[in-house]
Amino acid sequence: MKLDLVRPTLILDESKCRANIAFMVEKAKRHGVGLRPHFKTHQSHEVGRWFREAGVTRCTVSSVAMAEYFAADGWNDITVAFPLNQHEADSIDKLASEIQLNLLAVNAEALQNLDARITHRVGVFVEVDTGYHRTGLDPDDEAGMASIFAVIDGSRHFDFKGFLSHAGHSYKCRGKRQVEEVHRVDVALHNNLKSKHRARYPALISSIGDTPSMSCSDYFNGMDEIRPGNFVFYDLTQVAIGACSKTQVAVGLACPVVAKYPERNEVILHGGAVHFSKDSLMNADGTTSFGEVFAMDDEWGVQPKGYLKSISQEHGIVRCTGDSLGKISIGDFLIVLPVHSCLAADVMKSYTTMEGVRIEMMRW
Amino acid sequence: MKLDLVRPTLILDESKCRANIAFMVEKAKRHGVGLRPHFKTHQSHEVGRWFREAGVTRCTVSSVAMAEYFAADGWNDITVAFPLNQHEADSIDKLASEIQLNLLAVNAEALQNLDARITHRVGVFVEVDTGYHRTGLDPDDEAGMASIFAVIDGSRHFDFKGFLSHAGHSYKCRGKRQVEEVHRVDVALHNNLKSKHRARYPALISSIGDTPSMSCSDYFNGMDEIRPGNFVFYDLTQVAIGACSKTQVAVGLACPVVAKYPERNEVILHGGAVHFSKDSLMNADGTTSFGEVFAMDDEWGVQPKGYLKSISQEHGIVRCTGDSLGKISIGDFLIVLPVHSCLAADVMKSYTTMEGVRIEMMRW
Repeated sequence: MKLDLVRPTLILDESKCRANIAFMVEKAKRHGVGLRPHFKTHQSHEVGRWFREAGVTRCTVSSVAMAEYFAADGWNDITVAFPLNQHEADSIDKLASEIQLNLLAVNAEALQNLDARITHRVGVFVEVDTGYHRTGLDPDDEAGMASIFAVIDGSRHFDFKGFLSHAGHSYKCRGKRQVEEVHRVDVALHNNLKSKHRARYPALISSIGDTPSMSCSDYFNGMDEIRPGNFVFYDLTQVAIGACSKTQVAVGLACPVVAKYPERNEVILHGGAVHFSKDSLMNADGTTSFGEVFAMDDEWGVQPKGYLKSISQEHGIVRCTGDSLGKISIGDFLIVLPVHSCLAADVMKSYTTMEGVRIEMMRW
Repeated sequence: MKLDLVRPTLILDESKCRANIAFMVEKAKRHGVGLRPHFKTHQSHEVGRWFREAGVTRCTVSSVAMAEYFAADGWNDITVAFPLNQHEADSIDKLASEIQLNLLAVNAEALQNLDARITHRVGVFVEVDTGYHRTGLDPDDEAGMASIFAVIDGSRHFDFKGFLSHAGHSYKCRGKRQVEEVHRVDVALHNNLKSKHRARYPALISSIGDTPSMSCSDYFNGMDEIRPGNFVFYDLTQVAIGACSKTQVAVGLACPVVAKYPERNEVILHGGAVHFSKDSLMNADGTTSFGEVFAMDDEWGVQPKGYLKSISQEHGIVRCTGDSLGKISIGDFLIVLPVHSCLAADVMKSYTTMEGVRIEMMRW
């Protein structure tokens, strides 16, 4: 790799990224489910085009602003997988006049308030909580469901699309078996809901979506659509879960070494919370890691030189492994595989490919 | 406050912010030390101007890019308080042709490499480690000091400015007494260094700079310059340390309520890691907090409605206090005081004042 690096730079390995996309496209096809990937991870027109080249025509986003960004690049079927914010009625209405826009309802109030302020039709998914306990209705909450259906049925603006869940508690799993357990409950609850509501809404679909389950499982019985996002890059969290291998991680932050402390077996990188955000993982020995460190010219993920033991706003402290410190010089760039690639991308706001091409992201 | 809010918005209380600035300006004046505030917290031309209006003429930044940004708004005496990165030689040289630029040396190698690539003079501070153990030379490391001085003395490009430290371990303190202990060691080590090196470098200065010590202490014996940064906004971390009160915190993130779960005593905000970054504090009862939540129209910091118990990329889960949930409606905006204001500002990339004026930040 010949890159003329100066400052901390988020490197995107296009071939690994395209392989991750191809893996999920093929998996969805094999199981006969639609793929509506979540674009909050990459937030980039260019990476979106790689999905389009692989045959993907629909996407998921996490905000109306992000829907606007991708609509501007020709995406015309977008689900905003975040509980709708009635204050965004004007943006929603404008977008709904241009594309197939789907929103997420978790209560009747916001939907009712929105209804009074829009003129175009939008699709509505009802979010159900299948165990993550963040947002969504309890699948057994008949009264809650009834109140939302009443608003949908009473409005000229809403098409009920189906039920949607995010089994985010799969992120606490370690190993494919634990992930599979979470996922099977998710699928079972969706199939129950479908049986219960299909008579009244024959076209309803079941949409599920966490990267661990979508990566690990081959059980999609009755599901219609999957919405994984993180898999486009993967990261060390997904490695810890068992959803991917380290060599599948497609982004790494290239950081210059600015100091060496042999007596502490540590080197200091220009690379901190403004480059990685601050998610961490626990190492096997109970220490905390903010990323794993590799030589730029080795295959990333194979032979670690150390791990990021702490980060402040701009500094990263690398605890070196074995005798690696002796081979690191001040001024070297090292590559850090991130704990959470979505957040690292979000703070970095651009990528550079291994070939030196800069790829812009959404800015807001 | 009459703001027409739509999406998560970082609100800046200009009067609290200007009061924080005035407090530190007055304190520096009273103790006869120079004030070179760290601008990495606000990263904004406009807030920099508020400092200028208060009589401040020098600043500190954490990257060469940030130095370029502030130089473009007329700041002509800037210290980059981050170990110098030799790859930035071209940017450094250009900037050094325009302003008084000071860099930070923590080893001889990077300085030597820089020397060969610049043509203009820069000031050099030697960073010393007074207990934080992140970067800097051990004050007793005579060999390390000598190697750096040899490069400085042998070059036409470097003016030795003095010793600089960041006693960042004060962030682990709880209460003014603990902070004062850390701070007095910092000051004592600086005075030792000054005695030792003054004969050879009569103009050398001692520069210190963490917000906890600069806020809590009135002991600046022998110090020449202070470089606090966070105090411009403060945050819940500084409250926990004892460096400020909650009502001094000058930034809060206004977030819309998108869901209510009375059975869990929780409401959901559009407000997550992309708005706050991910620093947390421990509550008195051992639970984790990502921010404290107030009604928009109350005085911020006085009567909490709850705390952010967890955040994901865009969602924030508020655990409500007492019977506050009953008074919160879907669509309300709540204000969240951040755990770490520097990182919240860094991810939000703009402010809105209480009067509705939008203030831009550096973008890179």
